[in-house]
Amino acid sequence: MNVSFSSKLAALRLKKSSVLCVGLDPDPSKIPVHLLTDSTLSSAVVRFCTSIIEATETVAVAYKINFAFFEALGDSGMSALREVLQAIPETSLSIADAKRGDIGNSASFYAQSVYEDLGFDSITLSPYMGKDSITPFLSFANTCSFVLARTSNPGGADFQNMMVDGKPLYIHVASKVEQWARECQGEGGLVVGATDIESMVHLRTSFPKAPFLIPGVGSQGGSAKDVMDAAGSGPVLINSSRAIIYASSGPDFAKRASEVAHQTQQDLGS
Amino acid sequence: MNVSFSSKLAALRLKKSSVLCVGLDPDPSKIPVHLLTDSTLSSAVVRFCTSIIEATETVAVAYKINFAFFEALGDSGMSALREVLQAIPETSLSIADAKRGDIGNSASFYAQSVYEDLGFDSITLSPYMGKDSITPFLSFANTCSFVLARTSNPGGADFQNMMVDGKPLYIHVASKVEQWARECQGEGGLVVGATDIESMVHLRTSFPKAPFLIPGVGSQGGSAKDVMDAAGSGPVLINSSRAIIYASSGPDFAKRASEVAHQTQQDLGS
Repeated sequence: MNVSFSSKLAALRLKKSSVLCVGLDPDPSKIPVHLLTDSTLSSAVVRFCTSIIEATETVAVAYKINFAFFEALGDSGMSALREVLQAIPETSLSIADAKRGDIGNSASFYAQSVYEDLGFDSITLSPYMGKDSITPFLSFANTCSFVLARTSNPGGADFQNMMVDGKPLYIHVASKVEQWARECQGEGGLVVGATDIESMVHLRTSFPKAPFLIPGVGSQGGSAKDVMDAAGSGPVLINSSRAIIYASSGPDFAKRASEVAHQTQQDLGS
Repeated sequence: MNVSFSSKLAALRLKKSSVLCVGLDPDPSKIPVHLLTDSTLSSAVVRFCTSIIEATETVAVAYKINFAFFEALGDSGMSALREVLQAIPETSLSIADAKRGDIGNSASFYAQSVYEDLGFDSITLSPYMGKDSITPFLSFANTCSFVLARTSNPGGADFQNMMVDGKPLYIHVASKVEQWARECQGEGGLVVGATDIESMVHLRTSFPKAPFLIPGVGSQGGSAKDVMDAAGSGPVLINSSRAIIYASSGPDFAKRASEVAHQTQQDLGS
C-alpha cells in the first residue's frame, strides 16, 4: 500500500481513537509460568507475544518488538521474532526496536534486513555515527525511522542534554534528522522519552510535524496527560510495555493486558 | 582463563608481533562466486569466513564479526555467526561488532547474549543513551566493551566533533567511559577511526592506557604508519576488513587474504 507512515498513523489514530503502542519485551523471567511448561522457551515467547497482540489489537495502533529479547533466545530468536511480526494485524503498525547505528555499508544491510526481508513499517536508530548511518534507512518509502533524540532512561541525560552552541544535543540531532529526511523517500521520526516533559515540549515546539515515538509511560513513570499535552498535537505513538504485558503473570495475563491497554488508551485520549 | 582483555591483548601483540584485527564483513555480492554454487548462502558465508580465519590466524590478534551481515541472512544468521565464532582460535580475541546501545533492561539481555551465550571477548557499543546502556556490558570480567568515540565514517563528524564546554563530544564520551569502567569488572575501550588522526592523538594523549579499536585502515583510507604513531603507544587493535577479505574474488581468495594480512601487519609494525 503506497501510503506514508504518517498517513497510516493518522488514519489508525482516528479509527481506533488511540495513540497507544504496545511494547513487546518478552523477558523469560516474567512471562507467565504456565506458558513455559511443555514447550521450548522460544515457542513460549511466541505464544506469549501473539496472545498479547490478539488481546490488545483493537486499541494498539502499533506494536514495538524489542530485538534484545529475541536475540537473547539464540539461534531460534530470529524465527521467533518473525512469527511474532506476522501476528501483528494489517491494522496496526510494526516497529523494530533495534536502535541500530552503523556505517553506511553495514547500515544498508540492517535496513535491508528490517525493511525488506522482515517487512517492518518502522525502526529505532541511534544517531551517534551521523548521516550515513541514518540515510540508508530513510531511503525506504512508506517507512518511518525513529532516531533517538531524548531518551527516557536515567543515562539519557549524560550526553543528550549537553549544550552545543546554546542548544541541547538532542535538538541538534532532531534538526539533522529533519534535514536528512527531506532528501529521502521515507520519514524521519524522533524517540522522545516521557520522563522529561520539558525536553518534549522543546522538541514538539521545534518540530510540530515530526512523528514522535514516546516510551517511558507506565513502568518508567511518565504521566499520560502530561505527555499528550506536550506532544499530542503532532503525530505520536505512545509506548507502554511492561505495565501492559506483565499486568498479570497468571493464566489471565491476556485478559489483564487487554484491560490495562484499554485503561491506558482512555488515560491518553487521542 | 581469568586474565583481563588488555593482558591477553598485550601477550598476543608480543607473540604475533601484530596489532591486526581482521574484520569479517561477509557481503554476499563480494564473496567468491565459486563458494556460492551448490550450497546455501549461509553455509557459503560460513565457509568464506572460516577460510579467511584459517588463512590469517598467525597474524590476526583479533577477529571482528560484523553482526549486520549475519542478521541479513535471516533465520539462519545467528547459527552462521556462531559457527564463525567457533572457528576463531584460542590465540585470537573475538569482537562482536554490534554497536548496541539500549536501556538497562534491554542492555542486560544483549550483554548476556553476547558475553555469556555466545562467549565473545568484546563488543562495540554506542554511547548515546548514557551510563545505564553501557554498564551492563562493563560488568562482565575479562571482557572489553569498545564504545564509539570518534568514528571513521563521513557522518562521524556530524555530532562527535560538536564542542561542549570547550571540548569535542568524543572526549566527553571517552571520559565517561573511563569513569564508568573504574566501577566495573570489565574494561572500557574506545572505537577511534583511522581517518581522523588529529582526534586520535587527542584521545591517546588524554587516555594513554585505554584499549583502542581502530577501524578505517585500508579501504577507508587511513595510513598504517600515521595510526601507529598516533595511538600505538597504548593498547590497540587495528582493524582491516575489505582490503583483506576481498583481496581476491577467485579461488585464491584465502591465499591473497593471507598475503594482504601479512603485508598489513608489516606496514603496521607492532
